[in-house]
Amino acid sequence: MKFYDCKTAPSPRRVRMFMAEKGIDIPTVQVDLRNGEQLSEAFREINPRCTVPVLELDDSTRLTDSLAICHYLESQFPEPNLMGRDGREQALVMNWHEQVMFEGFLAGAEALRNVARGFANRALTGPKDFGQIPELAERGRARLEEFMAVLDGRLAGSPYVALDRFTMADIGAYVCVDFAGWVKLPVLEQWPNIRRWHEELSARPSAAA
Amino acid sequence: MKFYDCKTAPSPRRVRMFMAEKGIDIPTVQVDLRNGEQLSEAFREINPRCTVPVLELDDSTRLTDSLAICHYLESQFPEPNLMGRDGREQALVMNWHEQVMFEGFLAGAEALRNVARGFANRALTGPKDFGQIPELAERGRARLEEFMAVLDGRLAGSPYVALDRFTMADIGAYVCVDFAGWVKLPVLEQWPNIRRWHEELSARPSAAA
Repeated sequence: MKFYDCKTAPSPRRVRMFMAEKGIDIPTVQVDLRNGEQLSEAFREINPRCTVPVLELDDSTRLTDSLAICHYLESQFPEPNLMGRDGREQALVMNWHEQVMFEGFLAGAEALRNVARGFANRALTGPKDFGQIPELAERGRARLEEFMAVLDGRLAGSPYVALDRFTMADIGAYVCVDFAGWVKLPVLEQWPNIRRWHEELSARPSAAA
Repeated sequence: MKFYDCKTAPSPRRVRMFMAEKGIDIPTVQVDLRNGEQLSEAFREINPRCTVPVLELDDSTRLTDSLAICHYLESQFPEPNLMGRDGREQALVMNWHEQVMFEGFLAGAEALRNVARGFANRALTGPKDFGQIPELAERGRARLEEFMAVLDGRLAGSPYVALDRFTMADIGAYVCVDFAGWVKLPVLEQWPNIRRWHEELSARPSAAA
């Protein structure tokens, strides 16, 4: 297997944390997003979506979605379990992961990429350039705040995001909370239950991944 | 179990088609999206995200995401297999399903909800009202077209979307192609491989679900 990563980017960080929790070590290639390497002809051959993470399997199949990559890795390295032990648990992990992605992470990406100078003309990931829409940045920020309130409410009643133990849904939410710092949303000051949970997760070695 | 549906909406249609393929019959409650029933206090108690589909399990757990719902149903009703038979197949189904959702379905929703009169102030699903952003409608339409070209390319080299047989990824893509009709994108005229595949899927009884 081969892992295409970018050490400074939040999306591949989900997979890095997942692998760190499982003690998986896969040959890794760094893709220089800052200098547009994801848009190069060479990388388009690897992933026409021009994104990381990418996991290349030994039969050359390439996976380009975090959830799919983690699901595959879980099937190969089942312990410690991070995706749920039965259909119900797995569905809950997936459900929270999807909610984090759509309501939290995507909103954060809208908030960041539609105003930051570094993303002028790159308001979306992918092979095509799209201009910034300032109104969408505002909406993204409002939605991200909204989502943090939901997450805080969840963590008021549950030690972890999806189950009563650490799972992939916590990884997704943790990366999302840190990403909210990129748009200067003071999540840890504003939401005490997120802060408690974030402190606990920050003590795990995987947080450094 | 109990299934919360809206017969005219595309998102719960994914689950309806999935259940039809498996011959699953679950007591179903229709939620009247057209008249805003999803925003009522009663429905907020069921799903604070104010969306359908919702699957309520016998222990009262509620799932609110199509992929999670279908994953759970697959665990309870394994045949015919629709989510993949091993970790690699499952990851491919998931990967395509996520790509369809992010690049296709979400783009279509942006294209529709940011201009259609019926969605004034409801540019996003969920408990909060958000105003329309006309620029986002244009961008959504451009992205949706882009995605259809990708899907057509995939179906030029593969009989089905994720594997060499019908899976949940086909259901997601089929609903997305039909949804593109809502924004008058002439998908079936423009992309011959999508047309071939769409005709085949339309002959399955589940297409009427």
